[in-house]
Amino acid sequence: MKNPDILVVGSIAFDTIKTPFGEKKEILGGSATYFSYAASLFAPVNLLGIVGSDFPEKEIRKFEKRGIDTSGLQVRPGKTFRWSGRYGKNLKEARTVSVALNVMDGYSPKLPEQYRNSQYLFLANIDPETQLKTLKQVDSPKIVVCDTMNLWIKTKLPELKKLLEKVDVLLLNDEEARMLTGQENLRAAGRDILKLGPKTAIIKKGAHGVIMISGKDDFFFAPAFPTTGVSDPTGAGDSFGGGFTGYIAARNDFSTARMHKALFYGAAVASFTVEGFGLKALEKISVSNVEHRVKQIKKLIQI
Amino acid sequence: MKNPDILVVGSIAFDTIKTPFGEKKEILGGSATYFSYAASLFAPVNLLGIVGSDFPEKEIRKFEKRGIDTSGLQVRPGKTFRWSGRYGKNLKEARTVSVALNVMDGYSPKLPEQYRNSQYLFLANIDPETQLKTLKQVDSPKIVVCDTMNLWIKTKLPELKKLLEKVDVLLLNDEEARMLTGQENLRAAGRDILKLGPKTAIIKKGAHGVIMISGKDDFFFAPAFPTTGVSDPTGAGDSFGGGFTGYIAARNDFSTARMHKALFYGAAVASFTVEGFGLKALEKISVSNVEHRVKQIKKLIQI
Repeated sequence: MKNPDILVVGSIAFDTIKTPFGEKKEILGGSATYFSYAASLFAPVNLLGIVGSDFPEKEIRKFEKRGIDTSGLQVRPGKTFRWSGRYGKNLKEARTVSVALNVMDGYSPKLPEQYRNSQYLFLANIDPETQLKTLKQVDSPKIVVCDTMNLWIKTKLPELKKLLEKVDVLLLNDEEARMLTGQENLRAAGRDILKLGPKTAIIKKGAHGVIMISGKDDFFFAPAFPTTGVSDPTGAGDSFGGGFTGYIAARNDFSTARMHKALFYGAAVASFTVEGFGLKALEKISVSNVEHRVKQIKKLIQI
Repeated sequence: MKNPDILVVGSIAFDTIKTPFGEKKEILGGSATYFSYAASLFAPVNLLGIVGSDFPEKEIRKFEKRGIDTSGLQVRPGKTFRWSGRYGKNLKEARTVSVALNVMDGYSPKLPEQYRNSQYLFLANIDPETQLKTLKQVDSPKIVVCDTMNLWIKTKLPELKKLLEKVDVLLLNDEEARMLTGQENLRAAGRDILKLGPKTAIIKKGAHGVIMISGKDDFFFAPAFPTTGVSDPTGAGDSFGGGFTGYIAARNDFSTARMHKALFYGAAVASFTVEGFGLKALEKISVSNVEHRVKQIKKLIQI
């Protein structure tokens, strides 16, 4: 039986990135890109997004080769979204140097007919209005997983809150969870997130791993893989989302117990992503690499 | 069979503490105090330290009642060590408001004869010269566990390095591990610590749990208990050390596998400590409270 398709909407970008380990100019990135590369390890992905006429045909073919359907990828005259950022020594948070929305400005997603009955929906980090517009076009998704960022919490909180009422799983990082809820304690922040709509909150803490809070005070923790070879953290969160969602879609099971396991798959995929600039490390791995790393992560906590 | 005695040297203090949840003046604290209260849950403790003539007799009786032998506690004319600190909203690091060494100034530990053959030695956070002087008076300890802090890394690095050559297990927090090794990555920092002498490095990350690095690239992780009721983080690290060392002493086993388990005991004890100001929460708990919380922590990561 074919694995259920995952529908993702998000950004597709060219990134210019500087970290203590090097600098790369105009490499393929964006939340939907990292997510798709990661999730397609496990299940077919339908990609919804927009690029400019400068977007190379060969990158579209690379998507397709990974089982990522690009019939939802709009190509519009103009330039693809650009982002430039720098990471300090602690590699935790990027400082944005410049952003050019380009063709993303005013983007309104239009769902191809054949995407309407997608069962697994991932709203990658992008304007919450765009996320909501996408959600409204899907008939009856089994599960809606949503990522967001500090920018939207600051500038589009009412829109984000409206969206969250319809979301099953919210992914966000620790500082974003604090910003969204005003709670310093992450368990308390997780509980408050559940009051906003989601049944599950997944709080990403970078190298400190990830926590998952769900109904009935269920609290779960998965460590990050302790790689010493971090080159570029860009896309770690998005590919965590891809590994997580890809794994549950492949099993067609989104029970709490399955989601706990899925955290290890997200963590494993993300640990590869950060070991190379851009997609360099992520694009080379296979499911068996991921499975091996999942085992290594489990061993870290096995007594 | 009687559990092996643990010998601890460290500070005994009166602390004045302000956190976002309240303020307490001149409450009993100090690294050796928190350690002893925690470790004595599991095994007898011999306490080596110094207090002034202002130290209440009833506190000495409380030590004794917990199975903490105070024949190594010097009482000298003058005032007991005072420390005052404040914690910000994130509760991570205390800002020292004032320190008065008082009778601790020039303290030279003198081991009572009956402590010389102690098998479990814990060098709680205090001047590394005092730690080394203590170590030299113990005949042949089975295991030497050592805690330290940023102050000594900054001001007494040569003395600390000399001490570390004789230490089996070094406990320190993440920022201290970075400061000591110059490594941002904690796994790399752990590896570098092993080059300084210790066979095991335990890096405490507060609410993010604890990692343990030992020979042959063994890496292990234990989460913190996700309490939402933190009142005062003072003594968390020292009582972690007490739970950890107490547990291995009680089992008389310091294999790597046993130390992995001991991390959960340290984490459990520390999670109680932070739930009250000073010793308030720690002094009330029993081993069965700790065992229960260890089970809860294990459940957080059980898939």
